[in-house]
Amino acid sequence: MEEVIRNKQVVLKDYVTGFPKESDLFLDASATISLKLPQGSNGLLVKNLYLSCDPYMRSRMSKVQGSYLESFTPGSRIVGYGVAKVVDSGHSNFKRGDLVWGFTGWEEYSINTSPETLFKIQHTDVPLSYYTGILGMPGLTAYFGFYEICAPKKGEYVFVSAASGAVGQLVGQFAKLSGCYVVGSAGTKEKVELLKNKFGFDEAFNYKEEQDLDAALKRYFPDGIDIYFENVGGKMLEAVLLNMRLHGRISVCGMISQYNLEQGEGVRNLVCLVTKRVRMQGFIVGDRYDLYPKYMEMVIPLIKEGKICCIEDIAEGLESAPAALVGLFSGRNVGKQVVVMARE
Amino acid sequence: MEEVIRNKQVVLKDYVTGFPKESDLFLDASATISLKLPQGSNGLLVKNLYLSCDPYMRSRMSKVQGSYLESFTPGSRIVGYGVAKVVDSGHSNFKRGDLVWGFTGWEEYSINTSPETLFKIQHTDVPLSYYTGILGMPGLTAYFGFYEICAPKKGEYVFVSAASGAVGQLVGQFAKLSGCYVVGSAGTKEKVELLKNKFGFDEAFNYKEEQDLDAALKRYFPDGIDIYFENVGGKMLEAVLLNMRLHGRISVCGMISQYNLEQGEGVRNLVCLVTKRVRMQGFIVGDRYDLYPKYMEMVIPLIKEGKICCIEDIAEGLESAPAALVGLFSGRNVGKQVVVMARE
Repeated sequence: MEEVIRNKQVVLKDYVTGFPKESDLFLDASATISLKLPQGSNGLLVKNLYLSCDPYMRSRMSKVQGSYLESFTPGSRIVGYGVAKVVDSGHSNFKRGDLVWGFTGWEEYSINTSPETLFKIQHTDVPLSYYTGILGMPGLTAYFGFYEICAPKKGEYVFVSAASGAVGQLVGQFAKLSGCYVVGSAGTKEKVELLKNKFGFDEAFNYKEEQDLDAALKRYFPDGIDIYFENVGGKMLEAVLLNMRLHGRISVCGMISQYNLEQGEGVRNLVCLVTKRVRMQGFIVGDRYDLYPKYMEMVIPLIKEGKICCIEDIAEGLESAPAALVGLFSGRNVGKQVVVMARE
Repeated sequence: MEEVIRNKQVVLKDYVTGFPKESDLFLDASATISLKLPQGSNGLLVKNLYLSCDPYMRSRMSKVQGSYLESFTPGSRIVGYGVAKVVDSGHSNFKRGDLVWGFTGWEEYSINTSPETLFKIQHTDVPLSYYTGILGMPGLTAYFGFYEICAPKKGEYVFVSAASGAVGQLVGQFAKLSGCYVVGSAGTKEKVELLKNKFGFDEAFNYKEEQDLDAALKRYFPDGIDIYFENVGGKMLEAVLLNMRLHGRISVCGMISQYNLEQGEGVRNLVCLVTKRVRMQGFIVGDRYDLYPKYMEMVIPLIKEGKICCIEDIAEGLESAPAALVGLFSGRNVGKQVVVMARE
């Protein structure tokens, strides 16, 4: 006989315009799920352990067309990256008890009908939550965006915005490991301290305290910037363009300052792309999951040897998930924002 | 005994702000020059035949710092690309009668103290003026910017702005030779006709007659743009970004719409670089003159076989040079703007 149990979910109320509010999401405690897959299913039933809050999710809360990801459906539970444990498997590659990471529902249990998109977790001697960060999508994003798109050389000058976030904190550390000089920007004194004292950035500054971003960049980069890892867009990009060095590279990972504006800000100084021969390149990590094994080979030893560190901001329980997600856009999180639902 | 003769010059009156006017330049008919090099010189004395009017020259009319080219000096004759004939040589690579192209003064005769920067003209069975266009800097610009930066593939969708200009007209023809679909924009009905009937663009439109550039681009590129050859910047770039295809490429050759603005326009929609994984790359042809021999091998046969054509807008005499140069910025020229001073 089937065991049917409660399955709390986080549901999008309606499409969002402007800054998302906690009330744009609600907890539906009435949903249920059967703890056995339907007969003949080749999918998985998983128990969700950790949910990942990521800036890209903002775009799915709007009514969008022609983007690389579809909108969430108002009235339905949202999805995102997460770490989960297989409870029932109809797929030959997975068995009960396997740990996986990849897209999953914001709910206690999920049915996954395309298990081939999930990664099976091999290393369990590291915190499982890392598979929402350094060992998951943000980690590979930092790796692909920094090593492949920016092609860093020893001694180059690197600037990272939103530098204490899930991706930025890793880019800064990768830059130091590559022998670069690296400066980060963030939005609080606490984050600036973390950048300098925890992640080993050479310098860091609070962009909210700078009247003139161009002047701030000139202070930290008197000889200019070779590599800009772009997470914010808008006025910061405008100032960075003035400070790029010849043949500089800008990898465009995201532009979080723009996601909540109904009409994005215009960015001036693009003519610097010509005069400085700058390459500016947008990327989506989803195109390059083929790099994941290579990345793991590099990063697992770094973690185990304590050569790289991760700061997580962990919210407890699905009840705290809406606030955790929304908090990304006001910079409330310190480090990688995770929601823990269960630890095993 | 030295022969000293008159040497008319075009002089910059003062640094220019805003749109340049003909009166920002003046003709100095009082200058003189000796028709023999000083004893011991290892330079060249050349007679200037054709002068090239190019948009990049605008930046040298302003007081600029830290650009890739220095400002012109107010009160002195300006310089630019041109075709010239050697009158006296102190350099072993050149002899009297040689034809050269490269940087020269806007004057009847020039002394060149760095002849190693000049190209000796080998092919004289083509119009000499072509060395200010298809066989000179604009030609190599189109070649490097299109083939190397954009890496076109057969069947791709290509958009070129300022498409009837010296560089644009070549990019469009290179795109057709590469099996691409190509659309150009220009600023008059006459230029649009040239694009379609003379240069073989698949389609062309007058951007001044379009209320909505995004809608215009969607009309010509219902499936989007793979390659944008950027010559104008501003609102056109903003609209193009909305219409780029996945993994599209934007080669940023110039942004003529911005050169005369005291404060450039802001460009929105840069977040499309991420969602569409677009590479946007600025370049300066001066970095890649090593490609010139390879380019000549390709383009000389195309010219001789009539597979490529060039439209020049030829102004007669140094007296007409200020108006010709300034006319670039109101789009008065039709095709490559040249000033002819002497035909041999």
